[in-house]
Amino acid sequence: MQILQPEDQHWENSVIESFLKIVKSVDGDFEAVTELSNTVSDPNSLDLIIEFLCRHPRGKQAFEEKFLLGEVNLQKLYQYPKNTLGYCYAAHMIENGLSPFETHEINNKYQYLSVHIRETHDLWHIVTGCNTNMIGEIQLESFYVAQLYASRFWLALIAKNLTKLVIYDIEKSTEYMDAITRGWIMAKQAEPLFGVQWNNLWETPLDEVRQSLNIILPDI
Amino acid sequence: MQILQPEDQHWENSVIESFLKIVKSVDGDFEAVTELSNTVSDPNSLDLIIEFLCRHPRGKQAFEEKFLLGEVNLQKLYQYPKNTLGYCYAAHMIENGLSPFETHEINNKYQYLSVHIRETHDLWHIVTGCNTNMIGEIQLESFYVAQLYASRFWLALIAKNLTKLVIYDIEKSTEYMDAITRGWIMAKQAEPLFGVQWNNLWETPLDEVRQSLNIILPDI
Repeated sequence: MQILQPEDQHWENSVIESFLKIVKSVDGDFEAVTELSNTVSDPNSLDLIIEFLCRHPRGKQAFEEKFLLGEVNLQKLYQYPKNTLGYCYAAHMIENGLSPFETHEINNKYQYLSVHIRETHDLWHIVTGCNTNMIGEIQLESFYVAQLYASRFWLALIAKNLTKLVIYDIEKSTEYMDAITRGWIMAKQAEPLFGVQWNNLWETPLDEVRQSLNIILPDI
Repeated sequence: MQILQPEDQHWENSVIESFLKIVKSVDGDFEAVTELSNTVSDPNSLDLIIEFLCRHPRGKQAFEEKFLLGEVNLQKLYQYPKNTLGYCYAAHMIENGLSPFETHEINNKYQYLSVHIRETHDLWHIVTGCNTNMIGEIQLESFYVAQLYASRFWLALIAKNLTKLVIYDIEKSTEYMDAITRGWIMAKQAEPLFGVQWNNLWETPLDEVRQSLNIILPDI
């Protein structure tokens, strides 16, 4: 265990406070998620994530060029053939009443990390085949923990979901643990998804995209 | 999510309190573990566990006959051939300075569940190959969650360990998640360990015991 310095005591208390808040919140409480994200995303762990992502040429290039998904025309993508990434993404967004993430100004590597992950989050859902119910979300959280290496945020979401399970829903243990295991194994065998330029792949069949990234649903 | 009744609010607060206490404790704080166990082991979830275990003939027989490991002569087992379960168990206990669990009186199924799990805990360590460091413990916690189906206690230990990881040790995410995954897969493919009469197996080679229970280390 790392030894906390006195100045970390305040941080430790803040993390525990925001963790408790999200445990006591209903699932999908955006304010609680945002507070947790802000509290646990300290520069040290973000540096670890960035250093890890940059070990792969794709991540390195992404941080150098800071390319973004940019504006997405869902109606246009929705006209694409049904087997394409573009159509599957558009259908997912439209059917779930979601809007593409609005692009923010990027001034540094931390902002790029945050914006790139947020604007591609629904694409990760599509490509990994994780749906948006709790089981899909927890599978994707586990996938993120593997692919980002040192993410306090995504790991905190798993810890939060397991804590809620202990208190409210113990009979779902098997479903949750299966999802964590599936997400973990899938992420470890897959290519890194961080830095993929999805907007070059709208017309590519989803199956081909998955194959190129070695996304395989484990037999769990 | 189950709807909590008003009388459950007190229970919910107690669980959160004991969870926080163990998050803030040093690893292996026996008092915090005991408090957590007492708080989360409500009759409803224990009934679910017992009902689940009794679906297998071995578990059913164990609850009917309530057999125990009983007194164990470690010095005698330590003289057995080195490949036997008896020797491996005795060596583990002696080398770690552990004493066999003292048998308690059994008056009901809940006490049997608790005593049987506690007195066989170190045997589960040996048979699953999980050592007693944090990685071995978390792998075994995951194994218990799978094999006991609805255990708030073992799942709370995993949630606690992930929460501590978020705050203190984020760089160990991969090791911990690998251990959770290994324990989970191993437990799902293994025969149930609950109700095994280990004291009939002291002279059996450990490899044979593992084989008979289909204990296979997953390639994670």
